[in-house]
Amino acid sequence: MVVSDRIESAPGSSKRSSRKRLAILDAATEVFLRDGYLGTSMDEIATLSSVSKQTVYKHFSSKEALFVEIVSSLTDRTGDAVHAEMPPMQEAGDVATYLEAYGYRQLSIVLTPRIMQLRRLVIGEVSRFPDLARVLYERGPQRAMGELADLFSQLAADGLLAVKDPAMAAVHFNWLVMAQALNQAMLLGDDAIPTPAEQRRAVKEGLAVFLAAYGVKR
Amino acid sequence: MVVSDRIESAPGSSKRSSRKRLAILDAATEVFLRDGYLGTSMDEIATLSSVSKQTVYKHFSSKEALFVEIVSSLTDRTGDAVHAEMPPMQEAGDVATYLEAYGYRQLSIVLTPRIMQLRRLVIGEVSRFPDLARVLYERGPQRAMGELADLFSQLAADGLLAVKDPAMAAVHFNWLVMAQALNQAMLLGDDAIPTPAEQRRAVKEGLAVFLAAYGVKR
Repeated sequence: MVVSDRIESAPGSSKRSSRKRLAILDAATEVFLRDGYLGTSMDEIATLSSVSKQTVYKHFSSKEALFVEIVSSLTDRTGDAVHAEMPPMQEAGDVATYLEAYGYRQLSIVLTPRIMQLRRLVIGEVSRFPDLARVLYERGPQRAMGELADLFSQLAADGLLAVKDPAMAAVHFNWLVMAQALNQAMLLGDDAIPTPAEQRRAVKEGLAVFLAAYGVKR
Repeated sequence: MVVSDRIESAPGSSKRSSRKRLAILDAATEVFLRDGYLGTSMDEIATLSSVSKQTVYKHFSSKEALFVEIVSSLTDRTGDAVHAEMPPMQEAGDVATYLEAYGYRQLSIVLTPRIMQLRRLVIGEVSRFPDLARVLYERGPQRAMGELADLFSQLAADGLLAVKDPAMAAVHFNWLVMAQALNQAMLLGDDAIPTPAEQRRAVKEGLAVFLAAYGVKR
């Protein structure tokens, strides 16, 4: 009976533990984005997630470790979302249609209040906590441009784009599509996030410039 | 004698006052960029500029007013520097040479540690002090793109560029030239500011894309 209790209790305890971990992460995200890095205390996170401060520290060794986890997971989920549901190129019909969908997906998934708030917070803390921003950079824009470079290599190999330097083409595509809206949202706040219609127009116009440089002349 | 003393004293006092104002601004810039907005106190600014706290408040009614002044003047000086010394287009020979010089000037003047620190600080405070970021946005990127749009209108009128929407062309030029370096510096810190050679390459490559879309086909 005691043994079976122990056997039974392991998964239950592990489930409880993982539920607590998620509750801590949710609470921490809310408090960090609202009060900033310095303004956030582990006490408040414990209270909001209804666990003891000791439990918070059992899961995350420090406030910085907790924040790195939040930056990583939010950034990873954003990147995953951009790429998860892209249909294969063949189904799109032509390269312009495909890249327009790709660009719009990228822009619309990144331009959410939560991601913008996270980005502002991390940028504001670069001098004190450079590692936080490095995590966001590597898992955010750097990953996005790496995946774009792979895509452009493939499209060039298939004769659908005229790209000699895929990494440079990725930089150009990424910022033609993203930079203006991102800069506005960063400085003018979440109310300045463009509407879906404005985002579609920005992608279309940016893509036209990209294809003038990298499209295959027929 | 008393009257002449008074007459003499006015300009002297005004000079002293303006010297004090500059000392306060210098000290405040240093403290804000080092300690952030919340971490800065008017006491410390007074001490560092060797004036009384009362004198600080005589010149600037609040910490926010002082910070707005710093953001405005740093941003204005940056914008002025980009445009002050541009030679007229005719002397450059051709439009590509001219735009390359324009883009490099813009990028190299903006990508300084002080401007990057200011931008990070302002972005980190968007939710608490949206007006600060609005000042930076309007006097920084918005002004830069307004001047680019005027330039492209003129170059289109002269038959040197094929631009139908000068504001959109300005957005594309601005970010093809600036976005990658700016994003790196914002997230990876001042050590990630590209070297002059890297900046020149970024401008050249971005300009090639711009001209593929907006150049006059011969």
